[in-house]
Amino acid sequence: MPSTLTTTDPRTGEDANTGIEPTTPEGVDKIVELAVGAATELARRDLGWRAALLESLADALEEKRAELVAVAQGETGLSDVRLGGELTRTSFQLRLFAEAVREGSFLEAAIDHAGQTPMGVQPDVRRMLVPVGPIVVFGSSNFPFAFSVPGGDTASALAAGNPVITKAHSAHPLTSQASYEALRLGAARAGAPAGTIGIVYGQSAGSHLVAHPEIAAVGFTGSLSAARHLREIIEQRDRPIPFYGELQSVNPFVITEAALAARTDEIASGLANSITGSAGQLCTKPGIAFIPAGASGDRFANVVVDAVAAAPTSVMLNKRVLTSFRDAERSLEQAPKVQSLLGETGDTVVAPQGYNVSPRVLRVPATELTPEHTIEAFGPLLLLVDYDGVEQLTAALGRVPDSLTASLHLEEAEVADLHPLVESLSRAVGRVVFNGFPTGVRVSWAQHHGGPWPATNSFHTSVGVTAIRRFLRPLAWQNAPEMLLPVELRDATTGVPRRIDGIMHLPGTLNDERES
Amino acid sequence: MPSTLTTTDPRTGEDANTGIEPTTPEGVDKIVELAVGAATELARRDLGWRAALLESLADALEEKRAELVAVAQGETGLSDVRLGGELTRTSFQLRLFAEAVREGSFLEAAIDHAGQTPMGVQPDVRRMLVPVGPIVVFGSSNFPFAFSVPGGDTASALAAGNPVITKAHSAHPLTSQASYEALRLGAARAGAPAGTIGIVYGQSAGSHLVAHPEIAAVGFTGSLSAARHLREIIEQRDRPIPFYGELQSVNPFVITEAALAARTDEIASGLANSITGSAGQLCTKPGIAFIPAGASGDRFANVVVDAVAAAPTSVMLNKRVLTSFRDAERSLEQAPKVQSLLGETGDTVVAPQGYNVSPRVLRVPATELTPEHTIEAFGPLLLLVDYDGVEQLTAALGRVPDSLTASLHLEEAEVADLHPLVESLSRAVGRVVFNGFPTGVRVSWAQHHGGPWPATNSFHTSVGVTAIRRFLRPLAWQNAPEMLLPVELRDATTGVPRRIDGIMHLPGTLNDERES
Repeated sequence: MPSTLTTTDPRTGEDANTGIEPTTPEGVDKIVELAVGAATELARRDLGWRAALLESLADALEEKRAELVAVAQGETGLSDVRLGGELTRTSFQLRLFAEAVREGSFLEAAIDHAGQTPMGVQPDVRRMLVPVGPIVVFGSSNFPFAFSVPGGDTASALAAGNPVITKAHSAHPLTSQASYEALRLGAARAGAPAGTIGIVYGQSAGSHLVAHPEIAAVGFTGSLSAARHLREIIEQRDRPIPFYGELQSVNPFVITEAALAARTDEIASGLANSITGSAGQLCTKPGIAFIPAGASGDRFANVVVDAVAAAPTSVMLNKRVLTSFRDAERSLEQAPKVQSLLGETGDTVVAPQGYNVSPRVLRVPATELTPEHTIEAFGPLLLLVDYDGVEQLTAALGRVPDSLTASLHLEEAEVADLHPLVESLSRAVGRVVFNGFPTGVRVSWAQHHGGPWPATNSFHTSVGVTAIRRFLRPLAWQNAPEMLLPVELRDATTGVPRRIDGIMHLPGTLNDERES
Repeated sequence: MPSTLTTTDPRTGEDANTGIEPTTPEGVDKIVELAVGAATELARRDLGWRAALLESLADALEEKRAELVAVAQGETGLSDVRLGGELTRTSFQLRLFAEAVREGSFLEAAIDHAGQTPMGVQPDVRRMLVPVGPIVVFGSSNFPFAFSVPGGDTASALAAGNPVITKAHSAHPLTSQASYEALRLGAARAGAPAGTIGIVYGQSAGSHLVAHPEIAAVGFTGSLSAARHLREIIEQRDRPIPFYGELQSVNPFVITEAALAARTDEIASGLANSITGSAGQLCTKPGIAFIPAGASGDRFANVVVDAVAAAPTSVMLNKRVLTSFRDAERSLEQAPKVQSLLGETGDTVVAPQGYNVSPRVLRVPATELTPEHTIEAFGPLLLLVDYDGVEQLTAALGRVPDSLTASLHLEEAEVADLHPLVESLSRAVGRVVFNGFPTGVRVSWAQHHGGPWPATNSFHTSVGVTAIRRFLRPLAWQNAPEMLLPVELRDATTGVPRRIDGIMHLPGTLNDERES
């Protein structure tokens, strides 16, 4: 008999028995079998139904709001305000995907009628994107909703028309279970087939799942090392599948002399919030800030230190996150030429007092920057880097690993001069933030949350509407009888945007194909 | 001193010295360095220029048509008609990508203005796809133009705004060189920066190239084993990069009793052409055809054998392709319960008479089908499989590896009944062909040439306009000053389709954003 899973309250360090048994290999197989059945049925349902499913899931999450936030608080130590906001974002995200499903652009429907071409007469060819099959989702510890069981990977995989099997996170099994129950309720109300949403518990169940031949893709948010473990399993599969990983990020943050002169207090206060919010446990946290060397930089450093010091003591998510933060903190502190401006490395084992940490501010000159200084410290830590001129800045930025975001604080008059800097920042990240802060990722059509390796391992990721595309594949029909085509590819349909003989047509506009 | 590369005329088996030296590691590094410089410059050029570059490349290929076809004939043994058609397709493809670049949908430009949302006031976020960096292209032996130096991978990578470095195929180094020279001429005329298009020669140069840290992605068309070798190199890189492989395919072909009754001669003649054209060396060649057991199937088999036997003797592309065809032919012939209807396995070593083969037709009952029968025979070979009823057919199809295409010949009256069969075929391939033949892939907006593993190892591939997406990554700008945005994301621009606050707008229509 496998023992049941435990959960720990990071505020106290106390363990509790969840009563949840790890899923057995046979249990995993059965869940996958159900998902395979659901995949066939889901692919047959129309877009309107699929959108309604997503909305029903959002409704169910909202209904269970109080319970979900309370459970998550006991397993993550995050504040109820933060968790409430995250749940709002999570249900909003489901509704945004519902909107995208109804709109239908994501299908990329295209029709090329038969006709004469420079290569002779060519057949009728029609293409759209279709669901790939059962998707596995591994969530992160720092977003128990938005990047976990009901998060962006799940929402986008369902929006694409696939069943989803989530792996409950070991740091929040009860939150995972409660989220899954809410989703199951929402799915049942929408009349979803059995197997549309599943969950497995325990690490070996997760490994068994990823190795299962019927799994079509894996969405993952977490550490590089956990990603590596799953990648190794995937590489041993007979049939390779995509692994979409959001991994780690240092998120360089650059302030110009002019910006400091104009907005020292505002930038320092925003930066301190961005560093200490959610105990700095955000993948977009700016970990390394480049400031001009000299008097204005010194003054800025002082203001930042005061603002960071004034932040309340933070509770880390779990012992693993705490330990790895302590390791990073110690490594950075001991890296060459580093000066500690605030705090000192605390103990790792702090239970029964809980996983508390105090925020840190460190400092190093740009000329001294090495790979030892550019590791990610997942927690409330900021490394200030003094630079003397754009050339030194650019050279130092070149030593920062590619990231999810880069932020630049500048003044209007500098825009033209800084074009080359922006160009080089753009090559190294997925989002460039101007006069703002990278945390608090907007969920919207134009958003992108990802970046070059090691930030993510794929071009497209789980935030923003285009997350859907990761779980779709193209299928072309040649000379198909009308009845065998999906409705979106039949001649009469005008419900979704379509490219017809190379020309885009939007439904309900004068460019609608009925009018052409 | 490395020895120079040789080339072989497959029509005679005679070797010749090309005078081309394999590219040294230092030579490869220099070519990559040039490409890195070109990447920065290409990303700055506007879409109009990029489209003109592609058209200039097409013009240059057309100018060199006679030379290119003659050289390719001496290295591939393919007919001048076939090669001429392939060159037409290749230049047409470049022009189609030019059209797509001017149209601009591929950028997926999106603007979300700052504003109030359920998560509070959110910043202005704008996103579009940007080029990823230098792309490496490995072409195939069977398409010396369309899937080689000037082929779909090259065209789509350039259309995305990236420089391209091609690896000359060892079976057609002179064709690769001549194609490269034509592209270089076209690029120079368009004023492209040095390093926009490069070429390397020799296997070790190819390996060195794929391992180079500045390479952003690899496009590959060829065998599973060559793909595996390159994948291993990629897996050892510090920074993983996408590897887009088009690999192998059996392409099941299904004929119903009713279709046979109505069109035996027509289907048999089309199938024979599809099997023997280009000596069967096409990745979409239907390798396995399912026919109804009984009298009508027997009659069809006879007609097919006669049609195939009437085809002219084929010259295989090179010794490696010949050897591997002979191996497959022998394995299939010796697989359980296989009956040979036409031909016998010939010798592998045929020089100096050239790499000639005679077409083969084999036959096996559906109930006997095993993995030994479903290997790809890359050459003029067809395996007929007799099935007795849809259930037996479906079971046998389930034992065929996933493929690029599936073809179904049916009659109007059967459409409704065959819906489940079409659904299951659709899950196993990238294109379903009705009452037609899978070879002769149309190059158009709606085309898709790919399929589930082992047909390809990525959802999107090198044929059709959406091939561009493989070489683009999303980049988001948050609160960016207008001047630092790409023109396509500035408020005033209406030249490309854009999604603004969730709504699609097409330029030059009443749905244009100027009117909204």
